[in-house]
Amino acid sequence: MDGANTNEVRLNQQFAFAREIDKEKFIGRQTYLSDARRKENDAEHAWHMAIMTVLLSEYANEDIDVLKTVTMLLIHDLVEIDAGDTYAYDEEGKKTQKEREQKAADRIFALLPEDQGEKFRSLWEEFEAANTPESRFAHTMDNVQPLMLNAATNGKSWEERGVHLSQILKRNAITKDGSDTLWQYAYQNFIAPNIESGKIIKDTDMEDMK
Amino acid sequence: MDGANTNEVRLNQQFAFAREIDKEKFIGRQTYLSDARRKENDAEHAWHMAIMTVLLSEYANEDIDVLKTVTMLLIHDLVEIDAGDTYAYDEEGKKTQKEREQKAADRIFALLPEDQGEKFRSLWEEFEAANTPESRFAHTMDNVQPLMLNAATNGKSWEERGVHLSQILKRNAITKDGSDTLWQYAYQNFIAPNIESGKIIKDTDMEDMK
Repeated sequence: MDGANTNEVRLNQQFAFAREIDKEKFIGRQTYLSDARRKENDAEHAWHMAIMTVLLSEYANEDIDVLKTVTMLLIHDLVEIDAGDTYAYDEEGKKTQKEREQKAADRIFALLPEDQGEKFRSLWEEFEAANTPESRFAHTMDNVQPLMLNAATNGKSWEERGVHLSQILKRNAITKDGSDTLWQYAYQNFIAPNIESGKIIKDTDMEDMK
Repeated sequence: MDGANTNEVRLNQQFAFAREIDKEKFIGRQTYLSDARRKENDAEHAWHMAIMTVLLSEYANEDIDVLKTVTMLLIHDLVEIDAGDTYAYDEEGKKTQKEREQKAADRIFALLPEDQGEKFRSLWEEFEAANTPESRFAHTMDNVQPLMLNAATNGKSWEERGVHLSQILKRNAITKDGSDTLWQYAYQNFIAPNIESGKIIKDTDMEDMK
């Protein structure tokens, strides 16, 4: 195979992947957009967090590689093209989530040329493991962005689902590991006012999170 | 003002911007998604191109800073929150586009802390000027991504609007400046088959683009 043909095969793989990931735009989340009418999809969520990462990386607890973190966030929900979005407080769905997502990763990242498929797969595994500075900060973004939008809609999504403070604190157990500053800010500005207003049901003492 | 207060002011500005840009998710484009039913919005478009940039930067004519290019693409349509999307072939709208977008940039980037507002404003100006390796490649992405989606829907958007080949070639005058390889690939795989099928009206010789 000559150079031109190799290039063509590689380009075909890259564009097959680029076409496939268009489907992430159809994967809905539970967070309302700031107009409180339509809910967000995975692609919009990833775009939003990528910009927030560029702006807020200065608050990371540890030095982070911004491009690596942005790339991780851009691709971390691609597995949901096959596995669907599992709502943060859906305890049944969470039981099969890992298996469904592993199968999805096997299929989707294999569309790419091997080197790039391995790179993206490994970035996704790193996000899931949350054991590096970049993946810790990525989880901070993944948790703070919906808190911000939920607060912007005066807790509409929390109210509709009768969410309790203990659920939010459990969901955010590692948010501070990426950035103490951003977790403190999010708690004070996004969570606390919605406990005050009753949109979040207070079933535990606020001091528990500190 | 002590350090904690300075931090609080800065964080408030950063989150005011992060909330404001949520509105980009409401700005519609003319490109159909791969299901050929719903049209894409600006945030989805930017997310898609950011991932494509990470994968396809190896074909850039010149070396590019990938994080800079990705950031540029993530933010380059924010001005459309105020100015709206101007369709590639809307000649009337294009007359006032520049002025509307400059005013939008004045308002939106000013929400950020000064240093970050200047950085984003300057990245957007660089994209508009298209005179650096990163901005040239960003325009290649901005043009190739909708060509790919239009081809994935068998030219639906081109057919609906009666688009002529000469319009596409004019619109893509600088696509090759970022990457000869990607322009060649896009022409052969996305444009040519739709000239063959009549979805793009052939009003000029294909050789003109070479």
